[in-house]
Amino acid sequence: MNNFTYLNPTKIHFGKGQIAQLAHEISPNARILITYGGGSVERNGVLAQVRSALKGFTCFEFGGIEPNPHFETMLKALEIVKAQDINFLLAVGGGSVIDGTKFLAAAARSTDDPWKIMLTHGTKIESALPLGCVLTLPATGSEMNGNAVVTRAETKDKLDLFSDRVRPVFSILDPETTYSLPPRQTANGVVDTFVHIVEQYMTYPVNGQVQDRFAEGLLLNLFEDGPQVLKYPTNYDLRANLMWTATMALNGTLNTGVPGDWATHMIGHELTGLYGLDHAQTLAIVLPAIWTFKQQQKREKLLQYASRVLDIHEGSEDERVEAAILKTRRFFESLGVPTTLSGYGLSESAIPAVANKLREHGMTALGERKDITPEAASAILHLAL
Amino acid sequence: MNNFTYLNPTKIHFGKGQIAQLAHEISPNARILITYGGGSVERNGVLAQVRSALKGFTCFEFGGIEPNPHFETMLKALEIVKAQDINFLLAVGGGSVIDGTKFLAAAARSTDDPWKIMLTHGTKIESALPLGCVLTLPATGSEMNGNAVVTRAETKDKLDLFSDRVRPVFSILDPETTYSLPPRQTANGVVDTFVHIVEQYMTYPVNGQVQDRFAEGLLLNLFEDGPQVLKYPTNYDLRANLMWTATMALNGTLNTGVPGDWATHMIGHELTGLYGLDHAQTLAIVLPAIWTFKQQQKREKLLQYASRVLDIHEGSEDERVEAAILKTRRFFESLGVPTTLSGYGLSESAIPAVANKLREHGMTALGERKDITPEAASAILHLAL
Repeated sequence: MNNFTYLNPTKIHFGKGQIAQLAHEISPNARILITYGGGSVERNGVLAQVRSALKGFTCFEFGGIEPNPHFETMLKALEIVKAQDINFLLAVGGGSVIDGTKFLAAAARSTDDPWKIMLTHGTKIESALPLGCVLTLPATGSEMNGNAVVTRAETKDKLDLFSDRVRPVFSILDPETTYSLPPRQTANGVVDTFVHIVEQYMTYPVNGQVQDRFAEGLLLNLFEDGPQVLKYPTNYDLRANLMWTATMALNGTLNTGVPGDWATHMIGHELTGLYGLDHAQTLAIVLPAIWTFKQQQKREKLLQYASRVLDIHEGSEDERVEAAILKTRRFFESLGVPTTLSGYGLSESAIPAVANKLREHGMTALGERKDITPEAASAILHLAL
Repeated sequence: MNNFTYLNPTKIHFGKGQIAQLAHEISPNARILITYGGGSVERNGVLAQVRSALKGFTCFEFGGIEPNPHFETMLKALEIVKAQDINFLLAVGGGSVIDGTKFLAAAARSTDDPWKIMLTHGTKIESALPLGCVLTLPATGSEMNGNAVVTRAETKDKLDLFSDRVRPVFSILDPETTYSLPPRQTANGVVDTFVHIVEQYMTYPVNGQVQDRFAEGLLLNLFEDGPQVLKYPTNYDLRANLMWTATMALNGTLNTGVPGDWATHMIGHELTGLYGLDHAQTLAIVLPAIWTFKQQQKREKLLQYASRVLDIHEGSEDERVEAAILKTRRFFESLGVPTTLSGYGLSESAIPAVANKLREHGMTALGERKDITPEAASAILHLAL
């Protein structure tokens, strides 16, 4: 196991009715900006619960944050933050709303060009407004980490940041808020969570057994509960297990002392930036192709995954690896998420632009061994036609 | 899954050489009291590493904290804290040193009779000195939680406290510091960790799948690595996996949203208080007996444990439950930890005093269903003769 430092100071309130905790978590003197997305929180009553919990508090609202939150949109929110002297941000929504709000928290305390926050991947953030979250879509894990991804619509650049300064002070996770999610978003959330786990697991062994067992346990939950939740979208326990699985998948627990891959995410970001695919759709395309392309280097962990998660014990090593990749691909497809470019109307001609964007963003050495070049990414995408 | 609130602000530095981080984690202006136990940290060089990391800092030292730390001993440390105007405590050792130091942290800021801190189980702690830890014995999980157990030698009372105010600010976990542990302490640590996990797992199902999978993963690690580490005490990965397993077993992750048992601990505390047995020895005696006594009420989880952890799939339900309990008992015994009273020279005559102490401490309704009375505890101990 490698050395590591772990710290996660975000407080979680989990369960039915927990939105009422807002009144205890935010200072009565705060000037709050509530941020949200396309209006689903208005329709499903979550925003009403938030307003009710914060009755008597000084609140402003900013809606309309899109999936893959736009830099341009968050600059409009920044105007309100400055004009109204906001000192607390409350993100109500899924990962996109939370990510956009994290960027906003840093931008509010920056005197420089705000895009530089993204160009330097958050490393230069010295201060940020405090923020809390009411999560309504389990997927990104943003509710309990310091990560965010923001897209500049004008240039189709999708960049990430990592900073302890934008970790939520608290997050409220009420599984009932996810009952009304459309099946596509629920399925995307399962795929996104799945890929977060394996980006920290499917690399090479360093004998981090706690991390491996935890990752395998979360994957087993997704295989069991993912298909079920699409059938029973208002089953509390299914929603609760998926919500807590998604949070634990990316809150720093799994990546302690182990290598990380993240090539699937980086290549996927370019597909979203260029062609507007959902984040999870891009992951479903890239992941099985990377596993196929890198099956020699990932062999030991692919075999461990086959045995411990998928109960595949028969056949040669090659056969077990192949079966594991196929079973993963079929799992994504069973959730209604295609795993090929053609499944989204894209062909070979879509690939060169992805390689160019990777080059442009300096993503020239991806994966746990830093050996996935833009050329290798092209070859990987050719396995996903 | 039940509602829960989770917060764990302790920072962990894990790995080889991490004791050097002390200089970055403590203010140069601090007046530090370093607390430790019977001198093993002097002999194995850990204290020298600590002193070296804190060269130039204002440090005082207090050694001699015994296993099951005594209230009376910690009062002597309290005199130093007051006389030297100490404002930071650094516990260097295992759970007993850390637990005693947590009590000290609270006592230093209390104006009342310090024993009241224990009589009220930490619920009245309003303030405490900040403390950090250098862990040298993986077992109690005290390095990443707000729990402590302190014994009043004079009256043989062993009481626990729970308070967020005594959570360590940071803990340093260097697996190399555990290489020199005697086999008995290593084995005790494995048993202690095991029982911490099942106190939060072997109850009744509430469909907390993350918690169940994590608990099962940690148990699998103990079954695999526990016997190995006794053979290869200087194997880094084995020591590292056991150390991180012990911390994760009791840092608040496993008990989110699920019922807890803790009867084994409460009965075990009385056995230690009365007869001086090691904490883990008492757990090894009580646990299999409680599982046998409560096998109807714990049936669903016993069967889940048999299947997912022990790979027991054959036979009737009764047979699988019996096999699971037997396999657990044999596991403890294989580590050199007897699982009967007679294994420690105690007989039936030892039991009434335990029941009396439980009554005296108000422990009259133990277990996840609060139905283990002192009479039931007697019956349980009769299954462990």
